[in-house]
Amino acid sequence: MPTDAYSKLLHQLNKISLLETTMSLLGWDEVTYMPRGGGEQRANQLGALAGMHHELATSKLVGDYLHEAESEVGKSIAATAPAAVNLKLIRKDYDRATKLPQRLVEELSHTKSRAQQVWVEARKQNNFALFAPWLEKVINLKREQAQILWDGKGEIYDALLDEYEPAGKSSEIQQVFTQLKQELVPLVSALANSRNQPDESIIERYYPVEKQQEISQFISKAIGFSFNSGRLDISAHPFCTTIGPGDCRLTTRYDERHFNGAFFGTLHESGHGIYEQNLPSEHYGSPLGSAISLGIHESQSRMWENLVGRSLGFWKWYYPQLQKHFAASLGDISLEEFYRAINTSKPSLIRVEADEVTYNLHIMLRFELEREIVAGQLNVADIPGEWNRRFEQYLGITPPNDAQGCMQDVHWSHALIGYFPTYSLGNIYASQFYQAAEQDLGNLQEMFSRGEFKPLREWLTSKIHQHGRLYTAAELVENVTGEKLNPKPMLTHLWQKFGEVYRLKTI
Amino acid sequence: MPTDAYSKLLHQLNKISLLETTMSLLGWDEVTYMPRGGGEQRANQLGALAGMHHELATSKLVGDYLHEAESEVGKSIAATAPAAVNLKLIRKDYDRATKLPQRLVEELSHTKSRAQQVWVEARKQNNFALFAPWLEKVINLKREQAQILWDGKGEIYDALLDEYEPAGKSSEIQQVFTQLKQELVPLVSALANSRNQPDESIIERYYPVEKQQEISQFISKAIGFSFNSGRLDISAHPFCTTIGPGDCRLTTRYDERHFNGAFFGTLHESGHGIYEQNLPSEHYGSPLGSAISLGIHESQSRMWENLVGRSLGFWKWYYPQLQKHFAASLGDISLEEFYRAINTSKPSLIRVEADEVTYNLHIMLRFELEREIVAGQLNVADIPGEWNRRFEQYLGITPPNDAQGCMQDVHWSHALIGYFPTYSLGNIYASQFYQAAEQDLGNLQEMFSRGEFKPLREWLTSKIHQHGRLYTAAELVENVTGEKLNPKPMLTHLWQKFGEVYRLKTI
Repeated sequence: MPTDAYSKLLHQLNKISLLETTMSLLGWDEVTYMPRGGGEQRANQLGALAGMHHELATSKLVGDYLHEAESEVGKSIAATAPAAVNLKLIRKDYDRATKLPQRLVEELSHTKSRAQQVWVEARKQNNFALFAPWLEKVINLKREQAQILWDGKGEIYDALLDEYEPAGKSSEIQQVFTQLKQELVPLVSALANSRNQPDESIIERYYPVEKQQEISQFISKAIGFSFNSGRLDISAHPFCTTIGPGDCRLTTRYDERHFNGAFFGTLHESGHGIYEQNLPSEHYGSPLGSAISLGIHESQSRMWENLVGRSLGFWKWYYPQLQKHFAASLGDISLEEFYRAINTSKPSLIRVEADEVTYNLHIMLRFELEREIVAGQLNVADIPGEWNRRFEQYLGITPPNDAQGCMQDVHWSHALIGYFPTYSLGNIYASQFYQAAEQDLGNLQEMFSRGEFKPLREWLTSKIHQHGRLYTAAELVENVTGEKLNPKPMLTHLWQKFGEVYRLKTI
Repeated sequence: MPTDAYSKLLHQLNKISLLETTMSLLGWDEVTYMPRGGGEQRANQLGALAGMHHELATSKLVGDYLHEAESEVGKSIAATAPAAVNLKLIRKDYDRATKLPQRLVEELSHTKSRAQQVWVEARKQNNFALFAPWLEKVINLKREQAQILWDGKGEIYDALLDEYEPAGKSSEIQQVFTQLKQELVPLVSALANSRNQPDESIIERYYPVEKQQEISQFISKAIGFSFNSGRLDISAHPFCTTIGPGDCRLTTRYDERHFNGAFFGTLHESGHGIYEQNLPSEHYGSPLGSAISLGIHESQSRMWENLVGRSLGFWKWYYPQLQKHFAASLGDISLEEFYRAINTSKPSLIRVEADEVTYNLHIMLRFELEREIVAGQLNVADIPGEWNRRFEQYLGITPPNDAQGCMQDVHWSHALIGYFPTYSLGNIYASQFYQAAEQDLGNLQEMFSRGEFKPLREWLTSKIHQHGRLYTAAELVENVTGEKLNPKPMLTHLWQKFGEVYRLKTI
């Protein structure tokens, strides 16, 4: 049970959380509705609030309450009780925030900001040499950070991974990627060689934006995102941000000549949003009330985007309606043709445009390079060569330049190192959860074909969302599926589904 | 010239201002885009930021810098130099913030919040007795506040007025209202008795909302509101709020069966917005970079709404375009019929729906009652009776109930006492400025009839906006017009314009 010091601690954390979510609103507004002239002031507002946030989060007051609460709670409750778990998470955040020297924090902040500007320019000019010294600086600072935060177990890279996937282990991830490589590289090749290619041009027909907007709202609501406690707006880069327990905001973007972007983007962000909307609101404002990790978060978005939204059952239900909305473009297209078109898979250069099959290979490549760089086994200057060599090996094509190769993502310039693997973890977890859900609920595809998403949504809430951060990702997966992180369900799903879409058996 | 302490002081004030404008964004979002479920969190966010704001604004640090800057600046520059004026304003704000005991501030805040809830209910039930004890509490607290802030000169009411109209004097305002009463009461009566009434029903034809939105954006831009540095959105209660020097946001509301609301509402808010957008950005974040008073602010909104937007010259230019936009509703209506319809004047119960002529009488009534209550000459229980008695006397009609009488406005329940007179000050200043502009620029109506608004907009900026708060309202009016506050130009304008609209000479 919460002690008095614990309550006071939670009160302080809630104040910190109110500042954080205010910054989220400032950020959301910046990319949705802010007039162009507001940029400078917005940066100043965010800077001022970040300063106040840092002061509060590292304050002696929080440290004292935390210390007091730990000694009280430690005596009275089990280590697995919510308050005890919460205190452990709070301790981790507090130590993290106070351990890093102010000098390092500021240097990282300035370097990131400059590195990102240089990256934009270097990518435009396709000039890796311009970017390299800044990437070098970022990596050195991140290695310094990792040295300070590392607990001495596993690899030093894990200290960076931990920020996005708490308690994640790179050795485990490497094992999983080895399995993925073995099964996905041949699958990619088999699909590329299939004589039964889908007609991709279907998704590039004319899809009026206004109708797409209506459909996006409808489909987000249909799978269970609450518009009473949320919104869907437009931004150049789609995202999901939470302003409060009753206020979660999604964005997407519309292209009248591309159906997939907005539709699957909306399902993806809605998956994130449904997780956020169903976190335990009684713990809102402290770590226990938040999401477990980026990997688990991504498992929710990928679940709805791919395992639900790109499934045949889903389209058995929704294709007749979609066909009516876009009669001019889809009137002559059968359900099967459409289903195959949205499930086109082929090697491509850009990660964010990659499909369900090839996506993980893009991630594997990045994970390998990051890990070797942090371990000091790879030099920044060698990244372009290594990138292209492995790209050819995994995906069978070679990037024509670094802009479309190793400089395509913003992450490294923004000091997001250890972030990429969470995308693949999300895909793998999603398939594990899907399999477990089907064992509990019966044939999900049949439910989807009747437009029934509530059983799955409620199952996800009861098994995952409502526990907040009570468990680590590893504990959760084992609780829910009875297994550890396991890529098999995903691999089985991909071989089976894409085998059918590309009629591999009939080759 | 700024001294070192002065610079440090400005830096602190800028931080305070960043918090204030962040609160403005939270407030703007709350009534424009926030999903319904976000209300509780929003209140918490605003509460947390208000607390931090109060801490900063009353901090010893600010007090010390201020004290130091005063002694340095006092020796080196003239009292009318910008830095000296700024320091005087900062001192006033600081003293005000620190003089009021925390107990009073909190009691007012709680009482206001509760009084407003009770007011909503009492208005719904048309039950003044329910509201009365809460209004009494509010007034007692405001009198206590006035006692603390009053400089002992003039009336104690002036200490409340000062919050909205710095250095305003109620005795002066009373003199002006006496003149208004003498001229407006007979004008209202003459218009009511005219046999040439405009056909008001024209503005209640069908005006599709989407087209109204397009027109509102167009007209706001046409008079000089910058959409590079601003927006126009929808909210239940129209307002203008500034998030930063390049980010000013207006709202309006649309009714497909009422043309005037959105159109003149947009012009009104755009007038506020143009003032905000042209304040001296080099002083942004300190008092010198802000607007002089609510009265001067209102003079800018009323200028564009009434003196420009409801003028014949304006409609000579814009009516042909409007007629095309709403061909079905306006095809058979002449410019003259339309111009007379939007300039209908008649006694009505509700202030916010009142026209150019009757509006000031609504204000006069409120000002008289407020002043007497604060002076202890009128009891809360006697408000309904006094309201109705004077309403009959000034406007010739009697409110059928208190909901449409003394309980119609939110202001008193929200402790906004001393606020009402600024509306009329705005109307009066607007006509004085208009007259001065015409002396400098020539025939404004001719310019408007060619769609030329830039000369007036630039004149207002050079004479008013760009000076920020360098002058008091009284100084500014004298600088710009060579006269003190003077209701004559407005009275002349109203008699002349409405005499023509109602063809009084031909009676």
